[in-house]
Amino acid sequence: MSMYINSVIGKALRVVSRQNCDILQRIATNSTRSMSLVSGYSFETLKVESPKDYIFHVEMNRPDKLNAMNQIFWKEMVECFQKMNSDPDCRCVVISGAGRAFTAVEIHFLCSGLDLSDAITVLSGDKSNDIGRAAFKIHETIRQYQESFTAIEKCTKPVIAAVHNACIGGGIDLITACDIRYCTSDAWFSIKEVDIGLAADVGTLQRLPKIVGNDSLVRELAYTGRKMFSDEAKQLGIVSRVFPDKETLLSGAVELAELIASKSPIAVQGTKVNLIFSRDNSVPVSLQYAATWNQAMIQSEDVMKSAMAGINKEKATFSKL
Amino acid sequence: MSMYINSVIGKALRVVSRQNCDILQRIATNSTRSMSLVSGYSFETLKVESPKDYIFHVEMNRPDKLNAMNQIFWKEMVECFQKMNSDPDCRCVVISGAGRAFTAVEIHFLCSGLDLSDAITVLSGDKSNDIGRAAFKIHETIRQYQESFTAIEKCTKPVIAAVHNACIGGGIDLITACDIRYCTSDAWFSIKEVDIGLAADVGTLQRLPKIVGNDSLVRELAYTGRKMFSDEAKQLGIVSRVFPDKETLLSGAVELAELIASKSPIAVQGTKVNLIFSRDNSVPVSLQYAATWNQAMIQSEDVMKSAMAGINKEKATFSKL
Amino acid sequence: MSMYINSVIGKALRVVSRQNCDILQRIATNSTRSMSLVSGYSFETLKVESPKDYIFHVEMNRPDKLNAMNQIFWKEMVECFQKMNSDPDCRCVVISGAGRAFTAVEIHFLCSGLDLSDAITVLSGDKSNDIGRAAFKIHETIRQYQESFTAIEKCTKPVIAAVHNACIGGGIDLITACDIRYCTSDAWFSIKEVDIGLAADVGTLQRLPKIVGNDSLVRELAYTGRKMFSDEAKQLGIVSRVFPDKETLLSGAVELAELIASKSPIAVQGTKVNLIFSRDNSVPVSLQYAATWNQAMIQSEDVMKSAMAGINKEKATFSKL
Amino acid sequence: MSMYINSVIGKALRVVSRQNCDILQRIATNSTRSMSLVSGYSFETLKVESPKDYIFHVEMNRPDKLNAMNQIFWKEMVECFQKMNSDPDCRCVVISGAGRAFTAVEIHFLCSGLDLSDAITVLSGDKSNDIGRAAFKIHETIRQYQESFTAIEKCTKPVIAAVHNACIGGGIDLITACDIRYCTSDAWFSIKEVDIGLAADVGTLQRLPKIVGNDSLVRELAYTGRKMFSDEAKQLGIVSRVFPDKETLLSGAVELAELIASKSPIAVQGTKVNLIFSRDNSVPVSLQYAATWNQAMIQSEDVMKSAMAGINKEKATFSKL
Amino acid sequence: MSMYINSVIGKALRVVSRQNCDILQRIATNSTRSMSLVSGYSFETLKVESPKDYIFHVEMNRPDKLNAMNQIFWKEMVECFQKMNSDPDCRCVVISGAGRAFTAVEIHFLCSGLDLSDAITVLSGDKSNDIGRAAFKIHETIRQYQESFTAIEKCTKPVIAAVHNACIGGGIDLITACDIRYCTSDAWFSIKEVDIGLAADVGTLQRLPKIVGNDSLVRELAYTGRKMFSDEAKQLGIVSRVFPDKETLLSGAVELAELIASKSPIAVQGTKVNLIFSRDNSVPVSLQYAATWNQAMIQSEDVMKSAMAGINKEKATFSKL
Amino acid sequence: MSMYINSVIGKALRVVSRQNCDILQRIATNSTRSMSLVSGYSFETLKVESPKDYIFHVEMNRPDKLNAMNQIFWKEMVECFQKMNSDPDCRCVVISGAGRAFTAVEIHFLCSGLDLSDAITVLSGDKSNDIGRAAFKIHETIRQYQESFTAIEKCTKPVIAAVHNACIGGGIDLITACDIRYCTSDAWFSIKEVDIGLAADVGTLQRLPKIVGNDSLVRELAYTGRKMFSDEAKQLGIVSRVFPDKETLLSGAVELAELIASKSPIAVQGTKVNLIFSRDNSVPVSLQYAATWNQAMIQSEDVMKSAMAGINKEKATFSKL
Repeated sequence: MSMYINSVIGKALRVVSRQNCDILQRIATNSTRSMSLVSGYSFETLKVESPKDYIFHVEMNRPDKLNAMNQIFWKEMVECFQKMNSDPDCRCVVISGAGRAFTAVEIHFLCSGLDLSDAITVLSGDKSNDIGRAAFKIHETIRQYQESFTAIEKCTKPVIAAVHNACIGGGIDLITACDIRYCTSDAWFSIKEVDIGLAADVGTLQRLPKIVGNDSLVRELAYTGRKMFSDEAKQLGIVSRVFPDKETLLSGAVELAELIASKSPIAVQGTKVNLIFSRDNSVPVSLQYAATWNQAMIQSEDVMKSAMAGINKEKATFSKL
Repeated sequence: MSMYINSVIGKALRVVSRQNCDILQRIATNSTRSMSLVSGYSFETLKVESPKDYIFHVEMNRPDKLNAMNQIFWKEMVECFQKMNSDPDCRCVVISGAGRAFTAVEIHFLCSGLDLSDAITVLSGDKSNDIGRAAFKIHETIRQYQESFTAIEKCTKPVIAAVHNACIGGGIDLITACDIRYCTSDAWFSIKEVDIGLAADVGTLQRLPKIVGNDSLVRELAYTGRKMFSDEAKQLGIVSRVFPDKETLLSGAVELAELIASKSPIAVQGTKVNLIFSRDNSVPVSLQYAATWNQAMIQSEDVMKSAMAGINKEKATFSKL
Repeated sequence: MSMYINSVIGKALRVVSRQNCDILQRIATNSTRSMSLVSGYSFETLKVESPKDYIFHVEMNRPDKLNAMNQIFWKEMVECFQKMNSDPDCRCVVISGAGRAFTAVEIHFLCSGLDLSDAITVLSGDKSNDIGRAAFKIHETIRQYQESFTAIEKCTKPVIAAVHNACIGGGIDLITACDIRYCTSDAWFSIKEVDIGLAADVGTLQRLPKIVGNDSLVRELAYTGRKMFSDEAKQLGIVSRVFPDKETLLSGAVELAELIASKSPIAVQGTKVNLIFSRDNSVPVSLQYAATWNQAMIQSEDVMKSAMAGINKEKATFSKL
Repeated sequence: MSMYINSVIGKALRVVSRQNCDILQRIATNSTRSMSLVSGYSFETLKVESPKDYIFHVEMNRPDKLNAMNQIFWKEMVECFQKMNSDPDCRCVVISGAGRAFTAVEIHFLCSGLDLSDAITVLSGDKSNDIGRAAFKIHETIRQYQESFTAIEKCTKPVIAAVHNACIGGGIDLITACDIRYCTSDAWFSIKEVDIGLAADVGTLQRLPKIVGNDSLVRELAYTGRKMFSDEAKQLGIVSRVFPDKETLLSGAVELAELIASKSPIAVQGTKVNLIFSRDNSVPVSLQYAATWNQAMIQSEDVMKSAMAGINKEKATFSKL
Repeated sequence: MSMYINSVIGKALRVVSRQNCDILQRIATNSTRSMSLVSGYSFETLKVESPKDYIFHVEMNRPDKLNAMNQIFWKEMVECFQKMNSDPDCRCVVISGAGRAFTAVEIHFLCSGLDLSDAITVLSGDKSNDIGRAAFKIHETIRQYQESFTAIEKCTKPVIAAVHNACIGGGIDLITACDIRYCTSDAWFSIKEVDIGLAADVGTLQRLPKIVGNDSLVRELAYTGRKMFSDEAKQLGIVSRVFPDKETLLSGAVELAELIASKSPIAVQGTKVNLIFSRDNSVPVSLQYAATWNQAMIQSEDVMKSAMAGINKEKATFSKL
Repeated sequence: MSMYINSVIGKALRVVSRQNCDILQRIATNSTRSMSLVSGYSFETLKVESPKDYIFHVEMNRPDKLNAMNQIFWKEMVECFQKMNSDPDCRCVVISGAGRAFTAVEIHFLCSGLDLSDAITVLSGDKSNDIGRAAFKIHETIRQYQESFTAIEKCTKPVIAAVHNACIGGGIDLITACDIRYCTSDAWFSIKEVDIGLAADVGTLQRLPKIVGNDSLVRELAYTGRKMFSDEAKQLGIVSRVFPDKETLLSGAVELAELIASKSPIAVQGTKVNLIFSRDNSVPVSLQYAATWNQAMIQSEDVMKSAMAGINKEKATFSKL
């Protein structure tokens, strides 16, 4: 998706006009909520906190760049979600963006100075002028970017995207790989890749049509890159709930996360695994897979614990997974 | 889906508290509509009537257990739908639940006494303590439960689910295997398996995302087990029509069934076969299948009869299928 | 889909009652909008104009037959869309129907005289009475009809269906193969095949469930052939926008087409190719395909041009594709 | 596959010339080996014995009809293999044919008198002359025949086909659904359906190309129906071992069965399940399935028992499955 | 596959050294067998004769170019096989190469003068230097080349490749799309694309591994482009029979074709359709497809005719298809 | 595959009899060939040398443990193959085993002392007694093991397995993920998992049936774990060449590697990518993928270079990839 950066920067450096940057800089302000940071989750582009037991809140944390995605981000996303995947203290994840927007289209950060060097470094390895060799390298890079968001899917803990303000380009790629999407009423979405001369290649075209039910609208958005606001997004089904502002959004997302985290992790994570398997396979094969999955899981103590809790109208406590 | 019963009961017998049962028992009352029973369709857990020519009405008939699913039910569903599938007098099926609810979550029947022995019998065959052997047996049982609802899909006659009040756990598995879903305004739905410590494995996770267009909401429901009421269900598209009460619901369902039964059975059943094939295969393969299907069917007398009826503005009468 | 014509006419010729035709004839009036015809696109059943640069408007042009589909139409559709596919002057297509309706159910044209001979000619080649040989021929014909609409999908330029009034039978097959669907408020839709004793076999059952998110409603429509009006169609998501009348509809469709045509054709057409690939394959395979696609496309000059235009807030001009 | 019988007999009854039958009758002689019959496995067309612990030997047992497949056979195959599937005393199956041949082409039994009435009974239910209705019935019957051999695949115990002399038509369908194929040097094979005017539809065309590696030869055999003798069959890989005569064949097959039965049934049956899943799915999906299968099975006591036996160079005894 | 010609010639024209051509020219001599040409099958690069009733012999007919594939060839292949597909007089096809070799690697014709202009014409349409636009054009051309050989597969009549001497590059693409492969003992094969710096893209990598059973050898051949002679080809299973010379090869191929043509065309062509469907789909889906195919075909008169002929030991005559 | 170690060791520690170890220890001797080590490829369990330009030789290097696979090995395989994948100096890989055997079955190393602590460490993290939690952990570990060999497939450079002596259990998993398999005449193979009470789950059951063409033999091997010697392995096609001893084997493998490395890396690696894609997808989808791949690659300089070299009968030099 932001591959074009690679291609663009190498050539474009001299012509970038910086006059558009002021406004952007001004709207980018740091968020200052206070939550306890999770030790061991120290990243440059992500801030990981735990607002409640078993809930992890991942914040894309480059507010001055409007959370535009850079090389470090692509790598840290994989690390962070792999780590959470095997972290027994994490049962549900909320992901949001620090500052004024969820994530801005990457092109904006062209004007932000610092990232240019980053992008140039990425490209500097490829001095070849051969189209075939360049293609191999591009292929590898796109695959790596794809892995960043597929990591969200591979993490068996449910991931709730909490979107406010702009969610553009790579932002759509990101949220379509999440399980549940909530947003603020001021949120807006744009499949921006078409405006960079590209077909989106980091997940939007692959996942979006499978999570909503209006292909006519999906294609209109994909072909035009036009803005879709929160009400249309709700109607399309890309988000399932709209909140008045970022604060209520985050509260709502965390509240849902708490409810999910109160359930058996065996049940919740097995549900995610089976939902994703079912999306990619036929119903008969998916049923066969589910039976194979549960031939082990049904023997878990969580089944007994859950049933007893239900009968006794108590809250079950599940051991770590 | 109700596999957990098997697992739970063996261990739980001693601790079941029965205090919650009174309310349930009280709300479970027998429905007393009078329709002619269909001879040859005699079941313990299902009542099969024919309210109109070619329409079969299957009623889950354990109102005092809130139609919780037991061993006999799992077997009778297969028998009943296989029988209807090859019964030329059946062209469309309505399925509903007797008594106060469509189907209650199975855990409720823990307090109803009689079913305990049933579930114990099921499990008694497996005295082994080996996890591998238990897994084989569980796998087989889940596959058998899955077959109960896949039988609805294998029956080439359209099946309309008419849901009132509670539709929980196995109820969702059941209705997602139906063709069309109507409900009352007091209907509510819950993917309850998560509360038993399990990923749903009898169809919900496999079929639900393919029949509605809001994956964010589907996952929220699957991870939390929260109630969804009729208006949200209508908006999600899991039901396509809401009626004020059970009586108008059943009238509406039967009316739709009549309309369907008035069409050529060759056309209607071929449509069902092709819709299900298309769900599980790509568009090119599905088109190829449709051409192969119709190379025979288009030679049916029903095509001529239908066309003539259309031209003459008359009602066609189709011979049995 | 209109295969039944073949079967019907051979036998039905003697019994056709013409009394129903008067009304139909009266409502069929020629449309008389003036646009410049595109040279080289001369067809009997289609009129191709270019209302704006890079926009092609294909009009089904047998208004006196309510645009019923005949042999010539099936062939010309393939020719026309193949031609547009390789025509660098075409970047987006609008398709509509001349006269009173988008397309009438084919049976209507039974009363229109002229087409009878057409259908008879088609069938005359098959004098065989052998069911096997007839099946081979039918299979081939259905496959050919399917190709007519698959040609819309194989054309990598986005196709916007602009539907007014009746859209019946083959009309649904046609529009489900388009990218985007707009309609007038007086539009209505009917999966009419069931009334001819047939399962729809030219795309409706294959594509419709994959472009909307309410399987319960889709099946109800497919089993009953009942009319669905524009508001329900909008809610179902089969159309994404409703206009007050045909004039505003066409303006709206052309306006959208202009917006699409202003984008990089590399981006837009690559988006279509990837959306269709993704529909028919799993997410992991589709991601792999997207990376492979873009390993070439990202090296296009359009990426640079688009990025520069974005930065400079100018409009890019893209060379032909 | 032997569907044509249905079609043929209804019309052919009057013209059957019986002159070819004498030879056939003469070569059909009863086999008279003595083994202990397995109680509970009483069939008309199958004889089930247990030559060794855990080994079941299923013998197609209509030697005077050269084991031609009739209605009873189709049903008993399903019953027999379903029963063995859940019978803990069965760990490996050998299937062979009584008398002079493994199985003769069905047409031969046209001259054998008794079966005619059987076939006529099958067809008598379908008095309809409508091609569409006949197609529905035929479809159902073929699907039922297919189930007879798919039952071999669904039975998770390995099935060894021991083929002698003629293996024709339905015989090929049968053995391609088995796990392992051995034969005598006088064995010969023929995909005979082409000589009845039909494409084989009970498994040969679906499974044969996936179990051997010479598509050129497979197609030659399928298009011509020519005889293939044991040496060519060995080279093609349809059989993996050739024996001098029926006696050594059966000894060899039982010996292999004993070896298989001495292994952990958890391991052996899990292997079969995964091999069949892998055939029908991609490598990545199959790997995912295997991991899901073994997440339960690896916790079985058999793993420990097997490992200990290996270390101590002893023979493990596994409890029943 | 021969795409590289396009790319190469535009740039290479000036540097082609012609010194290697003499030998090639000398070994290219015209074949002069006499058979009756089939009227209506007039091609520049193909000669179509009918050596026997219902047998068509397609000869690649540019012996002086060693049957290298040019633009006209790519188009004529599609036309020829589409025509034969709907020609009731054609029941089986033999394809061979005129002159000294089946088909030479395309690079050889670089030295043959005349074809250069052909290739240049192809490329002249693409004056663009944009990599993205070039990619679109290349994609389209490869897809067109692929269609040339997929036409062999879409032709439902069995196609026997009769290979002598060199079969290189596009030759392998061609024969892997055929049903049956025979060759002379002097035949040799080479997946030559690797020597042009390319992955084979017209069928070899897609089809070869699915028609033989030795992936290790297939990959060795694909990675090295080394020659494989007839004995190794026989052992690998890419050919199923080897003949001493071209004359016996053609006799053998025609003899096989005659045998196939003597069978019911309903049976033979249905077999091809089902074999190809089965290759691309799972066994359960393929069985379902076969049942659907035969629900029509089993009602053909050919079934009765074939059965009667079998009983009466006569040769059946089947009407055209 | 060697998952059982995890399960076994925890319980088996006390009962391991060490008496069998002496023989094993004695046959395990260090190999002492001298080749230049590749800098940056420093592993504990693997030795990486470069016998020729662009050829990497990976040697499993725990000869005293008969190259049994331990935790470090599983991780280093991924690292090593990922590194080679992006190392432009590597164009072809040979993998072999140091010492007396390619790889011994893991159980052997139970007696070797040192590894016990390794395996115990792996398991120590899972103190839970819950079957569900254990299942999650096991699933994750199997998936990780699978990744070790899938890394061979994901490395786009061809990998030649050079097998001598024993190749057991995980060894089969490993070599089936390689491209080409050569062996010595004293090599033998065993799908040993069945003897540990397990279905093989690291690739053997998934890949082996797709690379050879004799399913009957594959299943016999998988169900019995019996030894297969080099001649049978050659006939089955699991290896494509047999050498008299290890020295000639390694020479032969390196020679083949040199030939492959002399070709365009664009061509060779693109061939691998397409072969693997084709294995997992249908022919039509694979053809579409190939066209998409080559729309970039055909524009590589390697095409021109290769063609020129061919014309001029020179050896091309390709720049790094």
